[in-house]
Amino acid sequence: MTKLIALYRPPEDPAEFDRHFNAVHTALAQRYPGLRKFEITRVTGGPIGDTKFYVMAEMYFDNKDAMERALASKEGKAVARDLMGFAAHIVTIFYGEVSNLEER
Amino acid sequence: MTKLIALYRPPEDPAEFDRHFNAVHTALAQRYPGLRKFEITRVTGGPIGDTKFYVMAEMYFDNKDAMERALASKEGKAVARDLMGFAAHIVTIFYGEVSNLEER
Repeated sequence: MTKLIALYRPPEDPAEFDRHFNAVHTALAQRYPGLRKFEITRVTGGPIGDTKFYVMAEMYFDNKDAMERALASKEGKAVARDLMGFAAHIVTIFYGEVSNLEER
Repeated sequence: MTKLIALYRPPEDPAEFDRHFNAVHTALAQRYPGLRKFEITRVTGGPIGDTKFYVMAEMYFDNKDAMERALASKEGKAVARDLMGFAAHIVTIFYGEVSNLEER
């Protein structure tokens, strides 16, 4: 699978960020065509000191083509537009190929 | 669940990094007591330009206590020691609480 990752640094106004993120942004992102799984991680700390991140959103697609179709769709453009409006300065977006390892 | 995340920037020597990461480091990390899932993402790009990341490892535990027990275990200390030996200058580690959203 291909995973699209949005990693956010701490917002200036966490309450306002959370409100928009939960009520508006994730609702838009859930409409990506071909979205297979959508995982949110609320960052709570780091084992070797503070962390510089606040929240991470991970969106899974069947493969890179499916992700690119989702990003180019009208739903994808609505997500991008919303993101740039509320978090352009604190978000980093990247993607990659996912594999799972078995526990030993 | 609680997820421990190790996010790596590009190594100076990708071939040597990959060799150690695949043959040694992930094998050590698979021995964390209480590890429920271990997902690796090979970063391949970013939709709005280059990405500054290379690979991300995500290790899932039942809760924060289980993660802390894993980090404090002898297996966890071996992971940390190995990490500091080969990637201290390129890795960021953080953790958080995971939730999954349904597709709309």
